[in-house]
Amino acid sequence: MRRAARLGSGAAAVVPRSRTLVLTSRPGFSNSPNRNAARSNQRSFQSGSKLDSVAEATVIGGPSPLPEVELPEIPETPTKNKRVTIGEILERRRKAGRLVAPTAAGCDSGVFKGDSTGKPPAKDLSHHLSFEAAIREPCKLKQAARHLKTPGIISLGGGLPCPEYFPISSISLNVPDYLHSPTLSPPEVHPALQDITIGKYDTLPSAPDRKEYDLSIALNYAQAHGSAQLIRFVTEHTELVSNPPYADWKTCLTVGSTGALEQTLRMLCDASRNDSILTEEFSFATALETAHPLGIPTFGVPIDDQGLIPSQLDHILSTWNPSERRGRRKPHILYTVPSGQNPTGATQGPERRKQIYDVCSKHDLVIIEDEPYYYLQLPPTTAPAATPTNTTDFLESLLPTLLSMDTDGRVIRMDSFSKVLVPGSRLGWLTASDRFIERFLRHAEVANQGPSGFSQVILHKLLDETWGHEGYLKWLMVLQKEYTERRNTLLKACDEHLPKEVVSWEVVRAGMFQWLHLNHHLHPDFQTKSILEIEEEIFNSCISKGVLIARGSWFRAEQDLPPTGLYFRATYAAATPENMTEAIKRLGVAVRESFRL
Amino acid sequence: MRRAARLGSGAAAVVPRSRTLVLTSRPGFSNSPNRNAARSNQRSFQSGSKLDSVAEATVIGGPSPLPEVELPEIPETPTKNKRVTIGEILERRRKAGRLVAPTAAGCDSGVFKGDSTGKPPAKDLSHHLSFEAAIREPCKLKQAARHLKTPGIISLGGGLPCPEYFPISSISLNVPDYLHSPTLSPPEVHPALQDITIGKYDTLPSAPDRKEYDLSIALNYAQAHGSAQLIRFVTEHTELVSNPPYADWKTCLTVGSTGALEQTLRMLCDASRNDSILTEEFSFATALETAHPLGIPTFGVPIDDQGLIPSQLDHILSTWNPSERRGRRKPHILYTVPSGQNPTGATQGPERRKQIYDVCSKHDLVIIEDEPYYYLQLPPTTAPAATPTNTTDFLESLLPTLLSMDTDGRVIRMDSFSKVLVPGSRLGWLTASDRFIERFLRHAEVANQGPSGFSQVILHKLLDETWGHEGYLKWLMVLQKEYTERRNTLLKACDEHLPKEVVSWEVVRAGMFQWLHLNHHLHPDFQTKSILEIEEEIFNSCISKGVLIARGSWFRAEQDLPPTGLYFRATYAAATPENMTEAIKRLGVAVRESFRL
Repeated sequence: MRRAARLGSGAAAVVPRSRTLVLTSRPGFSNSPNRNAARSNQRSFQSGSKLDSVAEATVIGGPSPLPEVELPEIPETPTKNKRVTIGEILERRRKAGRLVAPTAAGCDSGVFKGDSTGKPPAKDLSHHLSFEAAIREPCKLKQAARHLKTPGIISLGGGLPCPEYFPISSISLNVPDYLHSPTLSPPEVHPALQDITIGKYDTLPSAPDRKEYDLSIALNYAQAHGSAQLIRFVTEHTELVSNPPYADWKTCLTVGSTGALEQTLRMLCDASRNDSILTEEFSFATALETAHPLGIPTFGVPIDDQGLIPSQLDHILSTWNPSERRGRRKPHILYTVPSGQNPTGATQGPERRKQIYDVCSKHDLVIIEDEPYYYLQLPPTTAPAATPTNTTDFLESLLPTLLSMDTDGRVIRMDSFSKVLVPGSRLGWLTASDRFIERFLRHAEVANQGPSGFSQVILHKLLDETWGHEGYLKWLMVLQKEYTERRNTLLKACDEHLPKEVVSWEVVRAGMFQWLHLNHHLHPDFQTKSILEIEEEIFNSCISKGVLIARGSWFRAEQDLPPTGLYFRATYAAATPENMTEAIKRLGVAVRESFRL
Repeated sequence: MRRAARLGSGAAAVVPRSRTLVLTSRPGFSNSPNRNAARSNQRSFQSGSKLDSVAEATVIGGPSPLPEVELPEIPETPTKNKRVTIGEILERRRKAGRLVAPTAAGCDSGVFKGDSTGKPPAKDLSHHLSFEAAIREPCKLKQAARHLKTPGIISLGGGLPCPEYFPISSISLNVPDYLHSPTLSPPEVHPALQDITIGKYDTLPSAPDRKEYDLSIALNYAQAHGSAQLIRFVTEHTELVSNPPYADWKTCLTVGSTGALEQTLRMLCDASRNDSILTEEFSFATALETAHPLGIPTFGVPIDDQGLIPSQLDHILSTWNPSERRGRRKPHILYTVPSGQNPTGATQGPERRKQIYDVCSKHDLVIIEDEPYYYLQLPPTTAPAATPTNTTDFLESLLPTLLSMDTDGRVIRMDSFSKVLVPGSRLGWLTASDRFIERFLRHAEVANQGPSGFSQVILHKLLDETWGHEGYLKWLMVLQKEYTERRNTLLKACDEHLPKEVVSWEVVRAGMFQWLHLNHHLHPDFQTKSILEIEEEIFNSCISKGVLIARGSWFRAEQDLPPTGLYFRATYAAATPENMTEAIKRLGVAVRESFRL
């Protein structure tokens, strides 16, 4: 086992913080074994030649055979899904040294992971790939860039503009300090605001306060997987939260989960193969609208207050008959939102998750775990509840992700910053097996080329350089507190203003949406009007009374079947507490009028 | 003809600058006729019900019947592709008043256009749509948002986070002042730098220096077409440069031209219909790699130093025989880069463009006009040349775009900020007929949801609010000057260091690439080695000598045919002048060695 440093090995051995993890410029290319700067026994996960990742991170500089005693205290035993701590990550970074990832540097997220010893490799699920995904070839021009690693080479190759022509010399942000301040106040009343500045050449050795990322890198062309600087953060964050129990998981940035879902569906689904998708019987309308134009129908799985019912999922798959299912073969994809599901707000409990995973494993399904609301987990009741007081407890309090139980590598998890930072970042990340990530990236290269450099450098500056993992988790605790209050306000209003003889609900445990069930059997026009007609009547009445609410029928996975229940979705994310209460009052009037109560 | 103002009509009539163009929040919905705030006789282009745009801009406030004498001096006669001036645009804006486009406001770019009277409508080319594009439905949730226009309505509808949870209260940029400073220096030596700041609530009436766009809007969810604020700028810019000669052209933002191309191909091409694409015989490698996984082959059209040869294009189309063309039906798409084509650098002259357009019209082709290098138009020789001294002359000096001669609405033009501002913006725009833009957006809604809000608000702040059209055009003049110098440096080095007995070139007239032709007939191994073998030998020799250059064969539209010539592509965009000269010197040595000169 060797490790490498950019500076002379002697200096590196004495001053570990001067070590340098160098990612090659626009690579994808190295045949050298993947050596981990942190000596964390990082494996090099070489997949089949067809699926080889273009991008590969390397560590340059002479490998220095350091005595064992100097090595970091990272456990050599299999971690087996044990939680990784922030302290371990900080120590790993310290040992790895400065990250050097210049313009358009390739990056294998694996170099930022901890020890994978003892974890099994992902199963080969490449038989699920679509024709389009299977035949993709790496970009020729990006492949050629591997030669830029050659010392002293001058490039007349790629058409990358010089940063001297970028007409922005610095970007400054004003942000709350969640790392150092003990106050968990929301941003606009936070007592400790700070200005942080990103310069054009902050990574130059001559920079006064040298950084790892700057505008000259972030605003130029980049690899589709996103910058190494931000990939490091999301990879570590994924370890903190999920620490997937198989070895060759990877991450890459996305342009947000909406785009990531479309790319994933194109990667896995072929209309000509009679593919289809299973999902909650009420499912995110935009997800359904993403699948349908591709010729991919969606089929609903019955749900209860914990979402998908595993026995029903198993039954559907075990008894699948194409002739009863519009000619579609047995599905190989489950799309699910486990926490604060959209629209029902249902949140799968720990046992439920394990059961769903096991059914999917039994039937060889790929699971798309779409988790925009994961961090908005809320107390089970509106009564005052003990909440985590530190980030360790906060992490412990989070429900296990499907990814955290994914021994097969069949979960494709989509994370998003839209609900927890700003939707306008159009930036999220994917975690999946190396095989899937690699195919996904071959598409991203010709589709969106990864997220905006402005978004990347601003999020890196805020999350990584300013807040760090500790500060970011504190920020998530702030959000949790805020959304708990918002939910409680809505529920109090429901309790006071909705006619409980016809409207019922479960206290939502995560996310942004409260699902309301109206007993249509009690509607006076039950015999003469359809559910859709009653729903429309109430919806229109709400509009005329000044409240917009989402109709349950919009979210039905199978729009061709008649609805069996009457539902509405209400968000507590958008309105002020006063307006929310007023809106529920108006809804109550509309329901009473329709039901003639 | 009426116009509207948000304030009392009396005040509006007296103080035109207080008028307010209001775009509805998350609309797409209004059935009201499209009224133009600037009284510019803007038509409302209603397409068929299937193709109706979701987004529609409206003007609210009481219509005030103002006396004719107060109306702006915008000519009532057909403009017929006459150049629009910056003065006219500024006057139009002044009359329209403040743009009010709140969070996720819908926007029909048509409201920002000048008079279209007398221009014909686009031809209906919807028979070219792919199956996927034809069946797309608007997003249900975005449609529902039309109700937000209802006065006093409270939304429990969409899950948009409150901006109070955006943990960034302001963003500041340091930028050169190209509007006021007479100096056309590049950014890093510019004498007038200024700090500009974007606040979270700059659009509030209570804001000290009230603006039209802020972080609370830009960083929340938005419509896929992009913000009205930036659409206005690119629409006006398109008028300044192209002023398309048909009535119902529209613009929308894209996540850059790479992504826009993929979306466009999916919109227009079906493998099952035996579709294919025509392009330059040497074409942008990434474009080819975008088409192929979709099952869409590319066929090359012969080129000369002005790019595509119209007679050859006509011949190919007139004599198309599927059995000789891998079973493909006669193509209906031309993909072309008219200015500084990648890789050949060829630039179509004005007459050439018209001829190409006419052939495409004759054979009913849709033209994808991909123009990242359009503004990098360079003098015809390296001799000192008179360059435009003001923005009017600069605009006059630009080659006519295919869009500017598009009477049919068959051009889909892709513009990009990558080469003229920063590639990392991942932001560009599309100009095409309303029908195509609308279908494109139905895809964007479920694919990427439009560009990053950080990119949008930063570019708006810089381009629109700080520089304006005048400052932006001056900036483009700076770039033109800089790239002229870079090109001349490369050409001087070629002249001095390449063996002209075997290497020849045309002085490139636009873009970033110089195309070099090597006469392989003069190669000593001509009889025993293939062109590809000689090309590889020289390429590898270059690498070993320390220069990376692009191989011509990478760009061949038809990779299955044997190459007929030996070419290399050299960029003058990336290296310093000294390095560029050194690199060409090394290339010269490699060529001499291979040719044994």
